[in-house]
Amino acid sequence: MDLEVTFLGTGASAPSARRSTAAVLVARGGDRLLFDCGEGTQRQMQKSLGLTQVDEIYLTHFHADHMLGLPGLLKTYDLTDREAPLRVFGPPGLKELFAVLRPLIGRLRYPLELEELRPGERVDHDDYAVESFEAAHTVRASGWALVEDSRPGRFDPEAAKALGVREGPDFARLQRGEEVEGARGPVTPDQVMGESRDGRIIVITGDTAPSPQTVAAAADADLLIHDASFAEEDAQRAAETGHSTVGQAAAVAAEAHVTMLALVHISARYHVGKVLEEAREVFPDCVAPRDFDQIVIPLPEKGRPELVTDGARNRGAGGGETGSR
Amino acid sequence: MDLEVTFLGTGASAPSARRSTAAVLVARGGDRLLFDCGEGTQRQMQKSLGLTQVDEIYLTHFHADHMLGLPGLLKTYDLTDREAPLRVFGPPGLKELFAVLRPLIGRLRYPLELEELRPGERVDHDDYAVESFEAAHTVRASGWALVEDSRPGRFDPEAAKALGVREGPDFARLQRGEEVEGARGPVTPDQVMGESRDGRIIVITGDTAPSPQTVAAAADADLLIHDASFAEEDAQRAAETGHSTVGQAAAVAAEAHVTMLALVHISARYHVGKVLEEAREVFPDCVAPRDFDQIVIPLPEKGRPELVTDGARNRGAGGGETGSR
Repeated sequence: MDLEVTFLGTGASAPSARRSTAAVLVARGGDRLLFDCGEGTQRQMQKSLGLTQVDEIYLTHFHADHMLGLPGLLKTYDLTDREAPLRVFGPPGLKELFAVLRPLIGRLRYPLELEELRPGERVDHDDYAVESFEAAHTVRASGWALVEDSRPGRFDPEAAKALGVREGPDFARLQRGEEVEGARGPVTPDQVMGESRDGRIIVITGDTAPSPQTVAAAADADLLIHDASFAEEDAQRAAETGHSTVGQAAAVAAEAHVTMLALVHISARYHVGKVLEEAREVFPDCVAPRDFDQIVIPLPEKGRPELVTDGARNRGAGGGETGSR
Repeated sequence: MDLEVTFLGTGASAPSARRSTAAVLVARGGDRLLFDCGEGTQRQMQKSLGLTQVDEIYLTHFHADHMLGLPGLLKTYDLTDREAPLRVFGPPGLKELFAVLRPLIGRLRYPLELEELRPGERVDHDDYAVESFEAAHTVRASGWALVEDSRPGRFDPEAAKALGVREGPDFARLQRGEEVEGARGPVTPDQVMGESRDGRIIVITGDTAPSPQTVAAAADADLLIHDASFAEEDAQRAAETGHSTVGQAAAVAAEAHVTMLALVHISARYHVGKVLEEAREVFPDCVAPRDFDQIVIPLPEKGRPELVTDGARNRGAGGGETGSR
């Protein structure tokens, strides 16, 4: 099952020429989940993946740089004749936000479902869930953890044969967790299956000061996408505004034993290369993605998460227009 | 006095990878006027001119693709410590729009002034005015005409000398319109000044079907920026939705005797080169600017309006970030 993160907006409160405001798209198999939706998110999609019909949107909180792209995206879905329902999740206050946005959005011909989730609540999917945890910002805010179900262990066909199980349908039954008949009586799955394997975990904090809730949610995560608004010299400012320094984000990653840390929301006042060095002193497996970069997360036994950059996309390619003047 | 138009968003209702939604910036001397403000306008500025502290914003109407960029732009002005007042003009309904936007904008530390103008009403400036005229859209909508005051004629120093006016302060007085003493009695400005010269005119229609009001407002304009949403084969659709075909826009330009026609809001379904050909059959001096293109409008005696394209800007350059991963 492919699992891939596309950074549609990596900027801080105000966008810059190179960085749009907050938006992260997670593609898992055929599912498309958008986390936050800053102004211009629909165009960031069009410039990279194409206009993506996301299934679900998760908001971390309702500050402008995390949600001003909603009316435009939802309207464009309507203009492009979307019929599939769109589910939007966020902390309490989500419905109030949409009461404000409604006149800007206008009438939609596809179903829009809003659901407010408190920390600890989750949205279940076939073989993964998206769980809310409490972030530490100036307003009520939630981080989100995408947690895959653990997968069954590896099937050992030799062990099954040794127990007299016939090759064929009975092998499949054992892998589905069913008991079958062997040569010397019943054979149970635990006799032929290795230990169950952990699913993958992606954690997205949104805006937050460093917090034990994030450490708990991100324990052993494959990828932690963490607020890194400030450099160390501005730690005081970070504390006052409910944000993290790059070093604090790195310390959270270290404490949670994550595999990879991605820093976002870095203020445009800093040289990204320098703050990234600061972070790597605390936690080496750390990246600062640019807009349109992707992180591919293989199953743990197949490799480590990998940052994939695409310079061509970043220069505004895409779109098939061949107009002249 | 420099007069320059920058196309920040030339797209139709939904943005595309290459075209942002409606926004046109007019720079006249030190004044910066923004016409419409689609989603992402602040970033379009950052990618071209830099974040421009505009003095005034003129809205043509309140459809989303013409105003969703307002909350983000106004908030970013606040984040960048703007102190200068910002004046926003639009047709009646502007204050109602801002009542909706207010919770998204939040508190601003600079003064925001809203003024609703009816067709025929104008905003006076030192030596030009911005006048509202009625557009023909599905909702109440206004076009805007920037009209420079006519300039005094050329001063003829030889004629003044022949009338016995002393060179020096009296020359300046005559050019300011004052009477002075000559060798044989009073000399009036009309004796030494040529005919007054027309100022320049830029007309921006916003979304509109072809209309006699536009022809009247654009009479002899230097530049007409006209809705050209549809190709000729979709004339029916244009009429139903209160938009123009490229041919209709060209016919308006021809009837109004404008110097240059710029087509915008062209639907992404068309090949721009082809629709431009259609338009040029009706009105040859016609361009279809891309995002970040500029049109420079010299004084009429100094030349004709000129389209200036900047491929480098269009590839997303700008911004000084030198970050690494």
